[in-house]
Amino acid sequence: MLSFKQAFLEVEKFIAEADFSGNPTELYDPISYSMNLGGKRVRPATLLMVADIFEANKLDALHAAMGVEVFHNFTLVHDDIMDEAPLRRGQDTVYKKWNRDIAILSGDVMFVKAVDYFLKLQPAEKMGRVLRVFNKTAAEVCDGQQMDMNFETTEEVSIPQYLRMIELKTAVLLAASLKIGAIIGKASEEDADNIYEFGKNVGIAFQLQDDYLDAYADPRSFGKRVGGDIIANKKTYLLLEAMNLANEEQKLELKSCLDGELSDDDKVNRVKAVYDQLKIPQLSQLKMKTYFDRGMEALTKVNVAQEKKQPLMDIAEELMYRNI
Amino acid sequence: MLSFKQAFLEVEKFIAEADFSGNPTELYDPISYSMNLGGKRVRPATLLMVADIFEANKLDALHAAMGVEVFHNFTLVHDDIMDEAPLRRGQDTVYKKWNRDIAILSGDVMFVKAVDYFLKLQPAEKMGRVLRVFNKTAAEVCDGQQMDMNFETTEEVSIPQYLRMIELKTAVLLAASLKIGAIIGKASEEDADNIYEFGKNVGIAFQLQDDYLDAYADPRSFGKRVGGDIIANKKTYLLLEAMNLANEEQKLELKSCLDGELSDDDKVNRVKAVYDQLKIPQLSQLKMKTYFDRGMEALTKVNVAQEKKQPLMDIAEELMYRNI
Repeated sequence: MLSFKQAFLEVEKFIAEADFSGNPTELYDPISYSMNLGGKRVRPATLLMVADIFEANKLDALHAAMGVEVFHNFTLVHDDIMDEAPLRRGQDTVYKKWNRDIAILSGDVMFVKAVDYFLKLQPAEKMGRVLRVFNKTAAEVCDGQQMDMNFETTEEVSIPQYLRMIELKTAVLLAASLKIGAIIGKASEEDADNIYEFGKNVGIAFQLQDDYLDAYADPRSFGKRVGGDIIANKKTYLLLEAMNLANEEQKLELKSCLDGELSDDDKVNRVKAVYDQLKIPQLSQLKMKTYFDRGMEALTKVNVAQEKKQPLMDIAEELMYRNI
Repeated sequence: MLSFKQAFLEVEKFIAEADFSGNPTELYDPISYSMNLGGKRVRPATLLMVADIFEANKLDALHAAMGVEVFHNFTLVHDDIMDEAPLRRGQDTVYKKWNRDIAILSGDVMFVKAVDYFLKLQPAEKMGRVLRVFNKTAAEVCDGQQMDMNFETTEEVSIPQYLRMIELKTAVLLAASLKIGAIIGKASEEDADNIYEFGKNVGIAFQLQDDYLDAYADPRSFGKRVGGDIIANKKTYLLLEAMNLANEEQKLELKSCLDGELSDDDKVNRVKAVYDQLKIPQLSQLKMKTYFDRGMEALTKVNVAQEKKQPLMDIAEELMYRNI
């Protein structure tokens, strides 16, 4: 049985030893660069954990884990162009360090490299099953990114639309990673599907928790400024739910905070005051808990001994209740 | 035996009937749009011809042909962003009609859709072989595009570097399309490799012919302005070879044409005068012919009856000697 820490170290080692070099170097240097920016490696590490539970071939598991992580980094490289984001994990983004064209094209090559890793899997039947899961997910992640961009200019975003967006943009890739781990192991179709449901629901819960923490984290331990989403007028679960529940007066207050020219501190305080009146923090925690529990329930149904699933439950709890 | 015309019509029919719709629509509308901009469909149609020669399953052949054509259109959508090109086949490019972000993301989805078509092939072993050829080629096409962009700011580009660039940017996708047609049929490894060599060399010859025609086509039948490459200072085979062969005086004349502020007509005439002195048109036709013959020779080695290969030879000749 593999703990998250062990799996994480295996992923790090495999990435450190991977050779992403190629010519022209402008196209390949950004691949090593972004793969070595760090990160929690949640997707590849949990893929390894599931693969281990289902007794997959280790090298297959590592190749699939790399495929997922390279793909994830491809999405970051392209997203950073669209968001014109200068920094990622405290370092220059590819788009900033090189330029837009290199970020587009080197991102494209990363997609190719991700598929390359999956093409190493054996036998071909299994490789096909894995690639089908991966490819469906790849399109969904793009759909989620487009929905997210659309939301910036959409007046009314409903809660179901928002939940669907975070499911696609964030949750399905975690779900697919876990399912791929199950497939390259000896999991039954049913177990693989339940593993997917676990990942999907826990992934949605993660994102809801992200929204919550952005406004309500303890500033002493939170890595970034508390209230960043409020300052940026981001349509988070908190804001959308608040707009749903607000009376006319509260709606006006929220709108005047969003449209007005308040100082950042005033804006954060006044928006949070409305959130508090409407019990948005409690509501968002409840919503998060609902998805988290649904995920855990799906994991419970997976037909392997409880002690084998325990490390997955532990890491899900740990990631969820960070910084509270 | 399938003629190019028949194969072309089958491709057109399959594209017309394909459903590229999806949500969010911003992401999927550009796919139908670019797939329906037209074009000669050389890659998918010749794939069908080769598949037919080797008695492939028809639906497999059509799926593979679509995979190749969707991938080709993905590269055009991303290239047009990099080149900031407003028009493609007389219509707005995706980047112009929608915007940069949609062109990036919808291009990404097209890559996913291309892989999807290959994932339909049966049996899994064959699908894996085809995807490996495709994926290697996909990376090479990106490499070629990056080389091409690098050349814009490189002082000295050698002829071998230039030939390698057009091989990667243009020729390998034709070669891979033909090889994929062979693989999904019953071709031997050796025949598939010879078919690849045929496509690669003929592809390089096509591009050399493109360079030649850009300066020397009959203006009455040429679709665009003759001399466009010269006006744009494009490092074509003609210019690179001329810089190689020029004496000091001719070099100065070429450089003063490139750097100067001549009218377009004067520039074209004076550069072509140097080309003519150096016998560049004849040289470029010889070079083209060398690659073309090398391609035909590879096709000759393919172990099928001559009459089966004839339609491929015919279309290669036809495409090569267009507009002369």
